[in-house]
Amino acid sequence: MIEMKQRLAKMDPVSHKNVKINDSFWNPWKGLVKESIIPYQWDALNDRIPGADPSHTIENFEIAAGRKEGKHYGMVFQDSDLYKWMETVAYSLSIEKDEKWEKILDEVIELIQEAQEEDGYLNTYFSVNRPDKKWTNLKDDHELYCAGHLIEAAVAYYEATGKMAIMEVVSKLVDHIRTVLGDGEGQKRGYPGHPEIELALMKLYKITKEQKYIDLCQFFIEERGKRNPVHYYDRELEERSGPDNPSGRTYDYYQAHLPVREQATAEGHAVRATYLYSGMIDLANELNDHEMLEVCRTLWENTVNKRMYITAGIGSSAYEERFTVDYDLPNDRAYTETCAAIALIMWSHRMVQIEADHQYTDVLERALYNGALSGISLDGKGYFYVNPLEVWPHTANCRHDMGTVKSTRQQWFGCACCPPNIARLLASLGQYIYSANNSEIYVHLFIGSKTSFVIDNQEININQTSHYPWLGDVKFELSLDKPTEFSVAIRIPGWCNKVKFQVNGQEMEAPVVKGYAKLEKEWKNGDVVEVLFDMPVEVVRSHPEVRVNAGKVALQRGPLVYCMEEADNGANLQDIRIFTNQIFQAAFEPDLLKGVTTIKAKALATDKTKVKNQLYTTEVVPVVEKEVKAIPYYAWSNRGENEMTVWIREVEK
Amino acid sequence: MIEMKQRLAKMDPVSHKNVKINDSFWNPWKGLVKESIIPYQWDALNDRIPGADPSHTIENFEIAAGRKEGKHYGMVFQDSDLYKWMETVAYSLSIEKDEKWEKILDEVIELIQEAQEEDGYLNTYFSVNRPDKKWTNLKDDHELYCAGHLIEAAVAYYEATGKMAIMEVVSKLVDHIRTVLGDGEGQKRGYPGHPEIELALMKLYKITKEQKYIDLCQFFIEERGKRNPVHYYDRELEERSGPDNPSGRTYDYYQAHLPVREQATAEGHAVRATYLYSGMIDLANELNDHEMLEVCRTLWENTVNKRMYITAGIGSSAYEERFTVDYDLPNDRAYTETCAAIALIMWSHRMVQIEADHQYTDVLERALYNGALSGISLDGKGYFYVNPLEVWPHTANCRHDMGTVKSTRQQWFGCACCPPNIARLLASLGQYIYSANNSEIYVHLFIGSKTSFVIDNQEININQTSHYPWLGDVKFELSLDKPTEFSVAIRIPGWCNKVKFQVNGQEMEAPVVKGYAKLEKEWKNGDVVEVLFDMPVEVVRSHPEVRVNAGKVALQRGPLVYCMEEADNGANLQDIRIFTNQIFQAAFEPDLLKGVTTIKAKALATDKTKVKNQLYTTEVVPVVEKEVKAIPYYAWSNRGENEMTVWIREVEK
Repeated sequence: MIEMKQRLAKMDPVSHKNVKINDSFWNPWKGLVKESIIPYQWDALNDRIPGADPSHTIENFEIAAGRKEGKHYGMVFQDSDLYKWMETVAYSLSIEKDEKWEKILDEVIELIQEAQEEDGYLNTYFSVNRPDKKWTNLKDDHELYCAGHLIEAAVAYYEATGKMAIMEVVSKLVDHIRTVLGDGEGQKRGYPGHPEIELALMKLYKITKEQKYIDLCQFFIEERGKRNPVHYYDRELEERSGPDNPSGRTYDYYQAHLPVREQATAEGHAVRATYLYSGMIDLANELNDHEMLEVCRTLWENTVNKRMYITAGIGSSAYEERFTVDYDLPNDRAYTETCAAIALIMWSHRMVQIEADHQYTDVLERALYNGALSGISLDGKGYFYVNPLEVWPHTANCRHDMGTVKSTRQQWFGCACCPPNIARLLASLGQYIYSANNSEIYVHLFIGSKTSFVIDNQEININQTSHYPWLGDVKFELSLDKPTEFSVAIRIPGWCNKVKFQVNGQEMEAPVVKGYAKLEKEWKNGDVVEVLFDMPVEVVRSHPEVRVNAGKVALQRGPLVYCMEEADNGANLQDIRIFTNQIFQAAFEPDLLKGVTTIKAKALATDKTKVKNQLYTTEVVPVVEKEVKAIPYYAWSNRGENEMTVWIREVEK
Repeated sequence: MIEMKQRLAKMDPVSHKNVKINDSFWNPWKGLVKESIIPYQWDALNDRIPGADPSHTIENFEIAAGRKEGKHYGMVFQDSDLYKWMETVAYSLSIEKDEKWEKILDEVIELIQEAQEEDGYLNTYFSVNRPDKKWTNLKDDHELYCAGHLIEAAVAYYEATGKMAIMEVVSKLVDHIRTVLGDGEGQKRGYPGHPEIELALMKLYKITKEQKYIDLCQFFIEERGKRNPVHYYDRELEERSGPDNPSGRTYDYYQAHLPVREQATAEGHAVRATYLYSGMIDLANELNDHEMLEVCRTLWENTVNKRMYITAGIGSSAYEERFTVDYDLPNDRAYTETCAAIALIMWSHRMVQIEADHQYTDVLERALYNGALSGISLDGKGYFYVNPLEVWPHTANCRHDMGTVKSTRQQWFGCACCPPNIARLLASLGQYIYSANNSEIYVHLFIGSKTSFVIDNQEININQTSHYPWLGDVKFELSLDKPTEFSVAIRIPGWCNKVKFQVNGQEMEAPVVKGYAKLEKEWKNGDVVEVLFDMPVEVVRSHPEVRVNAGKVALQRGPLVYCMEEADNGANLQDIRIFTNQIFQAAFEPDLLKGVTTIKAKALATDKTKVKNQLYTTEVVPVVEKEVKAIPYYAWSNRGENEMTVWIREVEK
C-alpha cells in the first residue's frame, strides 16, 4: 500500500475536450482526421483498401468473438491498431458529436466485449491461435501492450461520451492481469517487453482514482530489469517449452538490461523506451518520487543532447528500430519511426508539467511540426513509418542496408502502428497547447484555439489566434467576469531570440523563468495580449561529433525544419552548397503543398557542363551560382519520388 | 570445333618465374609470404591457430580420402582455400626451391589424389556429405569454382616443378566435367554460379594446347544467362527436389541475367563478375573475338568510371558482396572485398596485354597498392575481408547495417577466401611487371627486379631499380650480347603529369602511345635508362554524382592513396578540413609502419574547448589550425582500433 503524497507537477494539461482548435495551419489536418483518416483507417482495419497490405484486425476480433471461423492473421499486436483508431475516434467525438461514428464505435465495443474471455482475458491472437500460451512470453508477445492501448482508448471514449461499457471491459481485463502478474504467491513477476500499459494505467488511475492501477503500474516499472536473482525474461524462457524469439535480442532492446532507476542512457527500441519513460514520469509525479524524476531527467538529457535528429526523430537504427550510441545519426539510414516522434511528444508533455521548462516544449514542438507530421501525406492517405533526413531514391531503392527507407509514401503497413498513432496525435492535439494551476495559465504551443480555465472560482476564457508557424504573431483575448490576478506564462521557443509582448497595445516586460515569460497582473475582461516572436531563417549546425553533418547546415524557421527536394532544385542535392551569411528569402506560397512558406537561398553548384566521365580527377570543376528553394520537412514527398535532404553543404568562408 | 585465328594480344606477360624481384618496398611482403603467410595459412588449413575460426580444410580431404571418419565442415567451397594456398606455395617454389614445402605439397597432392573419386569427381563437400547431389545446383554449389582453383594451383605447380601428378588429377577431373556438362545429348547445359573455372581452363589450355579446354571454357561463357528457352538455373531448380537457396537471389548476382554478350554494366557479386570478365577476355584473345573484346571494354568502362572506389575497391554493398548502381560508393559501408580488388588486378592485367593502354595498368596498380594490399597487415597475420574507406569504430561496432565492417584486422575467417588470395597475388607478383612481344619490352610496374627477354634470338637482360612508390626514380640497366633494335615501352602512370627519360645520361624524347612511352633505338650492352616521374601530392576529387564525397578530397601521391588515422590525428576525422592549395609536406618516416612516406598538411578543426553539450546550435563554433598527417591507405589498422578516413573535408576557398 502506497502512501500518497503531493504530486510533483507544477501544472496540469488542459484537456483536449476543453480546447477548440481553430487554426489555419492545423484546421486542414484536423479536417483530414475526421473526413479522411478515420474513415480510411476504418476501411483499412476492415481490409477494404485495394492494393494495401491487409490488416485483418476486425476479422481477428470477429473470430475471437465466435462470429466467424478462422485463424488470427497479422502481428501479435494487431489488436492495438483498432484500439489506437478507437482512441482517435473518441478524441474526435469529444470535440464534436457524430452519431455515425459513435454508433460504429459502440458496435466495435460490443465486438470487443464478445471477444473478451470469461475471466477477463482479451487478446485475439492468443484467444484464437495459441490459447495455451497466454502470458508465457511477456518479453515478446505484446499482451500487455495491447491492453495498454485498449485502456487509452477506453479512457478517451469514457471522457468523450461518459459511456461505461468499454471501461468495464478494461476493468475486467486489468483485474485479470492483476491475478496473473504481481509479486504475490503464485503470481508471475513479469512486466511487458513493450512498455505502454504503464502510462495507460496512470490514465486509468487519474479517471478512477483507484489505487490498484497505480500499484500495478508501479510493480511493472520497479520490477523491470531486476535480477531476483534471475532476470524474469530468463525465467519465463526456461519455463517455456517452445523456442525463444529467434532474434536473440539483448535486454537493452526492451529497456530491461538494468532496473529503471539505474538506467542513464536511452537504449533499445525507441518507441518502447519513450513509452516507458512517459510511464515513469507519470508515476514519479503521482508518488512525488524525486529520484525517479532525476532518472527521467538523465534519460532526457541523453536522448535530446546525444541521440536525437534535428527533426526530433529518434532511433537511428532500422535494425531493432533502436537507439544506438551517442552522435550516431546517419541521415540516409535514419529510422526515426513516426511512432517514436509521437512518443517523444508524449514524454516531453509529461516532463514540462513537472519542470515548467521550455526545453521540453521545444522538443515537443520540434517533434510535432517535423518528425511526427512528416509521417503523413498532405492528403492523409500516404504514410511514412521511417522518416529519413536524406533520400536518394537511386540507392534507397536498391541498397539492402537501406531496405526500410521508402522513397515514396505507403498506403498502409503490415505493421501498421504509425498511421493510427499519428491519427490519435492529431485528434488530441488540443491537450498539448495549455496547462494551468491555481494561479497560472501556461501557453505551450501557438495554435489558434479557444479554451477556458478556472482560477479563483472564476472562469477565464482565452481566445488564441495566430499565423503560426508561418508568422510569429500570436494574440490572446481574455474574457472573464471580474478582474482577477493571475499569471499568463507564455513559452518563448528556444529558436526565438527576440520577442515582444504587448498588453492592450502597451509593451510589457515579463520575467522569464525557464523559457516561460510570466505576464502577471490583474487581468480584466477584454484584455488583449499580443506576442511577436522574431522568426528569421536560422542556420543550424550539428555538434561536431555528428560526423555525417560535418560541413553541413540545416535551415530552420520558427518551429519548422526545412529540407530541399529534387522537385524544386533538380537532382544531386549533395552537390549544392549554400551561402550561410546571406539574407534568406522566406515567402508564403499559397499554391505550393497546400500553402507553405518556402526559403530561397543563393548557392553554388558544380557546372554540370564541365564534368567529365571519370570518377576521380585532380581537376577542379568550376561552380555556377544557383538559387535553391527549401520547403518545410513535414511537407516532403508529396510530389512523387525524388531526392530530399535536410542537411545542406555550406560554402565555408 | 573452333577454328583458331590470330590472338588479339599485342604482348604476353613475362612469367613470374622469369622475374626476380629485389625491391625495398616489396621485399618485406615477399619475405612475409615465405616466412609467415605460407606457414601461418598451412596451420590455419590444419586448424592449428588458437582462437581463430576453424578451417577444417585438410580434415575434409582426409575424410574424403577415407583416412578419417567424419563429416565435412565449413563452406561448400572450403576446398578452394587449400588450392589457393597450394598455388601460393607453387609460385614461391618457382622462384626459390624449398624442399620442405615441396615435400608438404607432394603429400597434399597425394591426399587430393586419394580424395578424387574413381570417375574423376573431386569435391570433398559432396563426396562426404551429399554424394547424391553432385552437379544438381551449379548455381550455388561451387563445384566448378573449386575445380577452377585446383586447375590454377596445378598449372602453377607444374610450371614450378614440372611434376605431373596434380596435372593428372586435373585432367581426370576436367574430363569428368566434360562428360556431365555440355550441349551434347544427355548432358546438362549448365555453367558455374561462381565463375573462376573459365580463366583456369584458359591457363590449362595455354600449358597443354588442348582444344578441349578452350571448348569447355567457351561453352561455359557462351551458355551463361541464355534462355533455351528456359534459363538453366530455373531448369536445375525444377529438377532438384530439395529447397532452393533461401536467399532468393536474382540472376544478376551470378552475372547470369543476360547472355554475356548482352551485358553492359558490372552487376552482382563483384568477385564473380571480375573472374568472369577475366575468363571472357582470355577467351576473346585466343579466339580473336572482337565482339567479346568490345563487351569487355564496355564492362570495364562501367566498372572503373561508375562503380569503383578510389582504392580500386569494387562491390559497394555488403549484401551479396555486390555491385549496386552507378555512383553508389558509400565509404563507411564499402564492402570492397580484398578478393574483388585482386580479381580486378587479374582482369586489368589481361586487358592491357590486348589493348596496350595504361588505363588498365593504372587500375591494376591502384588495386595492387591500395585496395588489395590493405587486406593484409604489415606482419602478415591480420586480414581484412572488407576494406572500407572510412571507419568510426564507435558505430562500426554497434550498427547492424555495418555488420561486415571490422574495425580491427581478423586472424582468419569462416569464409577464408581472401587471405590465400592475397598470398597468391604476392607470390606471383612478378608476372605483372613486364610484357613482351617480338620487338617490344613493356614495363608496366615499377618494382625492382631482374628479368630477361628474347628478341631476335638474343637474350636481353634488364635490371630495374627504384625507390618506388616512395620516389619516382626508376632505372633500367640493359645487358645484351650484340646491339639490337627494339622498343622499351615504359608506362607513364595516369597520376604522373611530368616525366623525364634519360638514356645513358642524355635526355631522350619518346613518343607516347596510350600512356606508354616508347623508347625505340638500337640498344647495346650497358645502356642505362633513367626515368624520373614527378610525384607530388595530388588532391583528388570525386565525380559530383558520388554524393558521399561532396566537399571532400583524397590525397594521393604516386600510386598510393592516403588516409588519415586517429592514431596520428586524434578522434573525429570528419571534423578536419584541409587546405587544398598548400604545399604538402611528404617525408619518409623509416620507423613508422615499417617505413612509409607520410603527408603533413595544414588544416582546420573545431575548437573543442568551445563546443557546448547540445546537438544543434545556431552558434558558429570557432576553428583552430591543426597540422594533420596522412599515411598510405594500405598501412592503416596496424596500430590498434581507431578511426580512419580516406576522404577528407576541404576548406573551400
